[in-house]
Amino acid sequence: MAAAADTATDTVTAAILVIGDEILSGRTKDRNIGWIADHCTAVGIQLREVRIVPDIEDEIVAAVNTLRARFNYVFTTGGIGPTHDDITAYCIAKAFGVGIDVDQRALDLLLPYYKASGREITPGRLRMARIPFGADLIENKVSIAPGFMMGNVITMAGVPNIMQAMLEAVTPRLKTGRKMISQAIDLNHPEGAIAEKFGAHQKLFPDVSMGSYPSQRDGKPVNQLVLRCTDELRLEEAAAGLKVKLRDAGYF
Amino acid sequence: MAAAADTATDTVTAAILVIGDEILSGRTKDRNIGWIADHCTAVGIQLREVRIVPDIEDEIVAAVNTLRARFNYVFTTGGIGPTHDDITAYCIAKAFGVGIDVDQRALDLLLPYYKASGREITPGRLRMARIPFGADLIENKVSIAPGFMMGNVITMAGVPNIMQAMLEAVTPRLKTGRKMISQAIDLNHPEGAIAEKFGAHQKLFPDVSMGSYPSQRDGKPVNQLVLRCTDELRLEEAAAGLKVKLRDAGYF
Repeated sequence: MAAAADTATDTVTAAILVIGDEILSGRTKDRNIGWIADHCTAVGIQLREVRIVPDIEDEIVAAVNTLRARFNYVFTTGGIGPTHDDITAYCIAKAFGVGIDVDQRALDLLLPYYKASGREITPGRLRMARIPFGADLIENKVSIAPGFMMGNVITMAGVPNIMQAMLEAVTPRLKTGRKMISQAIDLNHPEGAIAEKFGAHQKLFPDVSMGSYPSQRDGKPVNQLVLRCTDELRLEEAAAGLKVKLRDAGYF
Repeated sequence: MAAAADTATDTVTAAILVIGDEILSGRTKDRNIGWIADHCTAVGIQLREVRIVPDIEDEIVAAVNTLRARFNYVFTTGGIGPTHDDITAYCIAKAFGVGIDVDQRALDLLLPYYKASGREITPGRLRMARIPFGADLIENKVSIAPGFMMGNVITMAGVPNIMQAMLEAVTPRLKTGRKMISQAIDLNHPEGAIAEKFGAHQKLFPDVSMGSYPSQRDGKPVNQLVLRCTDELRLEEAAAGLKVKLRDAGYF
């Protein structure tokens, strides 16, 4: 893994803050958390916490400030549209203690877009050009109205395909650490059968995170053991050692 | 709504705490948050926050204590299986400052089940009978190993069908408040077109929560306005008034 040498020992962490009453009421089922989690793992960012909060200013501001102090990055989704319930941009500005106003860079994107599509420039639509002072814009190739990055907080839309476009657009600006890599071992046995051996093996490899994930196949309990580590050789050592123990006990 | 008279003015709130590295890594996509959210809305509990935290003792204990102080109920999912990474029961005991040990009521459920299915009673399986002192068990009709309710914290499995069985089993023990009811208005227009009228209408009905949820249909932007309130007549008044305004403006 020589290519990652410079950042090889870095751990880069992140949190997600999902903003929206509609997720908490159950009306909308979140599809962004899993997507961002996969993306973080793929690029070498460790997702450490997720919060979902309602469209309430104090809740959003408090969560932004808690999370941005604890993690390298905070990804927010939702609440940057044109209607009165879209208060995320205002809350980010408030969390950082900066002002917010219509941004010329955003206007330069939005005005030609609305003109070309024959839409009126309403105050609501201008609202989508309001960007906290000091933030950098994030391109939205789906519907133009941009996201933004303010300090270590990345503010994106809630609509999944727009969020995905913004996440892709902002990723080159993010620092990343060593990638967490994993190995999975599938077992045709319930996890209770191997719990002691697995726990003892975890104790031998404190630097390798080991989890057990039960499910059912054809009505029978099966189980997947997942080992995760940023050191590929160490991961291989731990996985190979575990397989030998499970084989010798008749489980693999 | 005379049937709900005694609790008609009560607001009962809840949070969800999802525990598990596998959700944060993206390996497993959560399917419990949306289910619990729908369930809370249906029975008259207002879900106010969700957190997802890793399998780290301090993180779990801190989140449990923060959330249980703020909300009427906290639903936890994940981390109550037989393996070393299942630390939720221990963390709940620690959060409440009580002990934890193998519980006779849980043993009475588990031992006959394992005996009947020919499984060994391993220390890992005994681990699933460890219940914080003072907690009430929650029935698990899928795989027997129980959940539990400690104070206002309801601890359930992470496997969706087991979580759902536990949620159903515990619900009769929960107090519920007035149900949040909603009306949706579908518009064949992007939300930017109606943002001002919608915002002005929200100001007239501060007790009715109004949200705008854009999406696409056949490549064209469409929008759903959702009005939510615990007072059915007030909700009808707000929705009817909004429809008139939108119709008069040519949008409905």
